[in-house]
Amino acid sequence: MTDFAATKAMFDLPQGITYLDGNSLGPLPRKAAARVAQAVSAEWGQMLIGGWNRAGWMDLPRRLGDRIAALIGAQAGHVVLGDTLSIKVYQALASALDMRPTRRVILSDTGNFPSDLYMAAGLCRTLGDGYVLNTVAPEDVAGAIDDRVAVLMLTEVDYRTGRRHDMAALTRAAHDAGALVIWDLAHSAGAFAVDLAGCGADFAVGCTYKYLNSGPGGPAFIYVAPRHADVARPALSGWLGHEAPFAFDLDYRAGAGIDRMRVGTPPVLQLAALEAALDVWDGVDLHDLRSASQALMDQYIAGVEAVCPDLILATPRAHDARGSQVSFRHPQAYAIMQAMIARGVVGDFRAPDVIRCGFTPLFIDAGDVARAVAVIGDIMQNRLWDNPAYHTRAKVT
Amino acid sequence: MTDFAATKAMFDLPQGITYLDGNSLGPLPRKAAARVAQAVSAEWGQMLIGGWNRAGWMDLPRRLGDRIAALIGAQAGHVVLGDTLSIKVYQALASALDMRPTRRVILSDTGNFPSDLYMAAGLCRTLGDGYVLNTVAPEDVAGAIDDRVAVLMLTEVDYRTGRRHDMAALTRAAHDAGALVIWDLAHSAGAFAVDLAGCGADFAVGCTYKYLNSGPGGPAFIYVAPRHADVARPALSGWLGHEAPFAFDLDYRAGAGIDRMRVGTPPVLQLAALEAALDVWDGVDLHDLRSASQALMDQYIAGVEAVCPDLILATPRAHDARGSQVSFRHPQAYAIMQAMIARGVVGDFRAPDVIRCGFTPLFIDAGDVARAVAVIGDIMQNRLWDNPAYHTRAKVT
Repeated sequence: MTDFAATKAMFDLPQGITYLDGNSLGPLPRKAAARVAQAVSAEWGQMLIGGWNRAGWMDLPRRLGDRIAALIGAQAGHVVLGDTLSIKVYQALASALDMRPTRRVILSDTGNFPSDLYMAAGLCRTLGDGYVLNTVAPEDVAGAIDDRVAVLMLTEVDYRTGRRHDMAALTRAAHDAGALVIWDLAHSAGAFAVDLAGCGADFAVGCTYKYLNSGPGGPAFIYVAPRHADVARPALSGWLGHEAPFAFDLDYRAGAGIDRMRVGTPPVLQLAALEAALDVWDGVDLHDLRSASQALMDQYIAGVEAVCPDLILATPRAHDARGSQVSFRHPQAYAIMQAMIARGVVGDFRAPDVIRCGFTPLFIDAGDVARAVAVIGDIMQNRLWDNPAYHTRAKVT
Repeated sequence: MTDFAATKAMFDLPQGITYLDGNSLGPLPRKAAARVAQAVSAEWGQMLIGGWNRAGWMDLPRRLGDRIAALIGAQAGHVVLGDTLSIKVYQALASALDMRPTRRVILSDTGNFPSDLYMAAGLCRTLGDGYVLNTVAPEDVAGAIDDRVAVLMLTEVDYRTGRRHDMAALTRAAHDAGALVIWDLAHSAGAFAVDLAGCGADFAVGCTYKYLNSGPGGPAFIYVAPRHADVARPALSGWLGHEAPFAFDLDYRAGAGIDRMRVGTPPVLQLAALEAALDVWDGVDLHDLRSASQALMDQYIAGVEAVCPDLILATPRAHDARGSQVSFRHPQAYAIMQAMIARGVVGDFRAPDVIRCGFTPLFIDAGDVARAVAVIGDIMQNRLWDNPAYHTRAKVT
């Protein structure tokens, strides 16, 4: 059994805070502070330009990619870190469209994270030539897959509701129709075991600052299935994706395999934080993680529903049908979340009416859930959200 | 007069090293270590998700953009940080091509940094429809501008030779032919005063880890001229470039002005390092910087030529015609640089035969140059490079 008390002790959590927002920004792993300081002072400061070789900076995107591969069911050597999730979405999409040259439709759903849709729409506009992004309701995706679809692009877990798509079934359906599939694992990687290889996914992308705890602005990752890795065209063809970056040739030749998805100079300080954050996973069994997470969510749902009849559950009750977050709806969701934060229970509000909390056993235990339920119960039963201070919108929420 | 002894004291330079490679990776500003530690422990650790507002993370790309604008002659409010230089090249190019819809040629030169050319070629391939990247020799650029050219894309200072283009004249020539101009300031920003607004540049991009000393993998910047800022199409249309990122609308609407060039979540730890690095510039007059840099280069050239007749100067002697680096050619350039590094004089080798050293007075003084000249003289006069240990190529140079 994974020792989650031990993993919790690996995080530097502020006193008096019950942090249920790791699905937005994971907390600080204690080792990350020292690891980043080492990257700054001992590596950058003392090795200077030599750090690219001597400190292994140049290999970090591949080395850490292998560690993430182990968490998402990807083959080693087929995941690389870099850029932001939106950029990686663009590369995966451009590659996939290139591999289905007679088709013009990108299919996605209205529950997808908007940035993925924006990047897709931007790519369609750049391509012209009839390319179009079609979105349907999440429950209508399977029925909307036809032979005009070049690529099905989905985020496995809905950032708002926590609803989880059936990766295996939808990948199979897309393949049956001759389409390729891109999975966005933003709310999956580190939340539960993903089985990219088993599902036959073509591409996957994800971020590291949520359940992988790499810190604000940590780099994204991209996976390309081995069968596509040497044919995919990266579209954003930067020098570190070149076959020989330091030959400084004038002509681009895509590097072998996943290396071609690298673009520019890797963000070494952010990668150092990620490296330390990944150490937390060394003793973690992903099946233990999933069952502990489900137990925390069940406890939270039962607790909230028992005391707050006005909060409407937006997340599926079925274990298989949800990720690692629970969302409730309420017209005063924004003010309720502000009241929660004022009482030390940190989740987040998502427009228009969602109170969203994430439940990872890495640093959340049953005592935290009980505390959160008590606070929410008090807020709802005593209408503590009905305070003008909680209705002023901050710039970013 | 700028006090360069004071700026030198602001850097944490390793004992015994004469660092002439700030044009590849600037050294560590002392304050950066504390600033990054603050971002990690006090901001990420204690504020958690609240850091986006309370620590001002979300505004960093614009706030630091304004500080860089002051160094490159850009109007305040028209520079933003993010991504890597290659990504920013792609956005500038896609925007510029979109603004010249009847033209199909991107013109550049063979001295441009290869990644810029790779990104351009990748974009042409994505666009199809007759788009083409044409490259000519640096001295032939002016003559190659015609009415088929949609955009002239140049790096102001050649990364290999240090030759500097005439930004004002080439921008004028391009505009006279109806073309737009993108300037890559990788070897300009922080090396000397740039006058983007005065030259009428349309777009500019640059990196921060060279002369701006932001550390390995520090973010890039992009400038869009005010006259284009609200019409440019960012192509990589991510959520933080949206008019209202936290409304989570399904449809993309480009944000106002330079904000639309933002893509994904900003790399907060790298930005924190950049913020501290920019403090070094507070007391620096860019004209003092330029004249001190020219004096160091003159001293270096004269010293090396006096003792090393086999080293052939690749950098223009004329002050106006060069950036802030000096390159010499020699068939054994790689081994010579290894011998220099072994003696504590760090520059870099650039294929096929270039010994490249950068000269910024921020942390290099006449004593450093004298030491470098003495070491190179000893190496050349005594053929110290003729040592098998110096001929083994490292993976990255």
